[in-house]
Amino acid sequence: MTDSLDKVLKSIKPLDSLAMTAARRRQDNLTKPRGSLGRLEELSIQIAGITGKATPEIKHKAVITMAADHGVVAEGVSLYPQEVTRQMVFNFLRGGAGINVLAKQTGTRVIVVDMGVIGGFEPLPGLVCKMIDFGTKDMAKGPAMTRQQAIDSIEAGIEIVQAEKSKGLDIVGTGDMGIGNTTASSAIFAAISGQSVEKLTGRGAGVDDKQLAHKVSVIKKALSINQPDPQDPLDVLAKVGGFEIGGLAGVILGGAANRVPVVIDGFISGAAALIATGLSPAVKDYLIAAHVSAEAGHKSLLNFIGLKPLLNLDMRLGEGTGAVLGIFLAEAAVRTLSQMATFGEAGVSDIEPEQKGV
Amino acid sequence: MTDSLDKVLKSIKPLDSLAMTAARRRQDNLTKPRGSLGRLEELSIQIAGITGKATPEIKHKAVITMAADHGVVAEGVSLYPQEVTRQMVFNFLRGGAGINVLAKQTGTRVIVVDMGVIGGFEPLPGLVCKMIDFGTKDMAKGPAMTRQQAIDSIEAGIEIVQAEKSKGLDIVGTGDMGIGNTTASSAIFAAISGQSVEKLTGRGAGVDDKQLAHKVSVIKKALSINQPDPQDPLDVLAKVGGFEIGGLAGVILGGAANRVPVVIDGFISGAAALIATGLSPAVKDYLIAAHVSAEAGHKSLLNFIGLKPLLNLDMRLGEGTGAVLGIFLAEAAVRTLSQMATFGEAGVSDIEPEQKGV
Repeated sequence: MTDSLDKVLKSIKPLDSLAMTAARRRQDNLTKPRGSLGRLEELSIQIAGITGKATPEIKHKAVITMAADHGVVAEGVSLYPQEVTRQMVFNFLRGGAGINVLAKQTGTRVIVVDMGVIGGFEPLPGLVCKMIDFGTKDMAKGPAMTRQQAIDSIEAGIEIVQAEKSKGLDIVGTGDMGIGNTTASSAIFAAISGQSVEKLTGRGAGVDDKQLAHKVSVIKKALSINQPDPQDPLDVLAKVGGFEIGGLAGVILGGAANRVPVVIDGFISGAAALIATGLSPAVKDYLIAAHVSAEAGHKSLLNFIGLKPLLNLDMRLGEGTGAVLGIFLAEAAVRTLSQMATFGEAGVSDIEPEQKGV
Repeated sequence: MTDSLDKVLKSIKPLDSLAMTAARRRQDNLTKPRGSLGRLEELSIQIAGITGKATPEIKHKAVITMAADHGVVAEGVSLYPQEVTRQMVFNFLRGGAGINVLAKQTGTRVIVVDMGVIGGFEPLPGLVCKMIDFGTKDMAKGPAMTRQQAIDSIEAGIEIVQAEKSKGLDIVGTGDMGIGNTTASSAIFAAISGQSVEKLTGRGAGVDDKQLAHKVSVIKKALSINQPDPQDPLDVLAKVGGFEIGGLAGVILGGAANRVPVVIDGFISGAAALIATGLSPAVKDYLIAAHVSAEAGHKSLLNFIGLKPLLNLDMRLGEGTGAVLGIFLAEAAVRTLSQMATFGEAGVSDIEPEQKGV
């Protein structure tokens, strides 16, 4: 049984401040100058707050990579043909994609989910089917999906993260595949933030200037026709979103409800985070922004939510590739917190507390 | 038998451009938008050029953490007492330090080297003894070491990397431990670059404003008394350097001579890289700057050499902690290059070459 969206939203609690205080105290007693592990220290304390454990462990790691198609591709917004979404799902299942390689390196399991790929799939080992429909409708002509489909896609994401939690899940990453989904993500961000479409629309897989101008005009048309309500994240998702974006919003909400740190990937995962934090602002503290991607708009999107990315490697692949690198850093953070010796244990001379600036 | 410094300097060759071209071609055929792995793609191509292999492998990883003491500590430049250098060596050997935890996570072996710690050590399992002297002399009163000691320390580093190479070494990281060594590193950078001491001197383990001003004045005094010749890296190392800094310069030179990628850590490793690239400018292409640390001056130092850091996590611990995170990214880079499927292998539709901007 999946919990309903409402129930999940109500179950998201603030971080555990006692665990955070205990983690901060331990960090300050480890054999290193205070604060010298920088963002790894911050991250370890955040994860203590998320999990409610002063020395959290990260053993079971998963990245949930959701695929779906987008009706707006009919408007010619993407460089790659639409069938690439489906082809890449097969590539994920065979282990040949970027996400597979990086997940293997870091010991992270990859959960591949069909949220609505055109053509669909026969039952395949390793593929989770949560298909809402064979792709969204063309948002330049009307709503991408119904409001019920928006809710269904989010609840599908919640269901998946709950199923993974029951197998063991200490951290979860988000990933996406969907030709046309940077278009939907820019539309979501523009609708919610009210910022100019030009500013936050990027080249996706690599469109040129002319194609970029066309992409901007298509997004403007979609916003104008659909008039999504910026105060209603479900309305925005339904009008200009995508099934994988709704699914990832569900993963984020479900992760937070289960006190699992959620490492978000690039621009598409960021759009999902916008929907999720719109539905529950408390979710923000459960998010770790893995990286800022090369996609225009991603940096402003993270700023808008109030997240500071860990990495800036000019990546823009999606699939969860950045998220998996972020999971590695999160693991480094909690390992140093729990496994390093304290000054006392190691017999290393500490300085006086007042010299630490305590 | 160690090769002499001269022989090593002569054996450093430019990168292999054929291997780099082959790696670039493969990157462009992997199932992802061209360039979408960003800096990981650049890194994979650099490593192809270093190793001379179109699809290099990284299996054997080591970080060489060198410890030594600094006579300049007598001037009161550091927050921590000098015995912490020695205490931290024991912490490294027992596995309780930050470098041990991060190295374990990434499957990297830690080579702990005594380059000249006050008090010395009985023979200890896991400790490599290359002791030049029980710490340097106080550079505020005269040269930190003799020119011969500078050469000896570099040759010790070369010897260590050659010994590790014979055990299997696909990538090497540099790390340091030495109370007072940010003072020596700032002095080296100021001497070589001619930039102002104020600008490139930072807080080390965490000195306050007053202590920082004192540190700056000590460095100025050392430069004024010793007059290191900016054109002669050995003179700079001898006058204001440290034994671990010389040793790390040797690791860098030996790595390059053996076509092993060298991942440099923070400010102290950067000072070693300045000495190494001063002795052989060709070394620069063998270097991977893991991160820019929170230590003031590190960013300008990397700019001065012409290196772009991979990470910016506000770390300033040293020991090789940043280097090991960089080794992880280097491994991610070569794994994606060699293990991802091509468009042809995966049956994924590619776009026309002219659309790729080829």
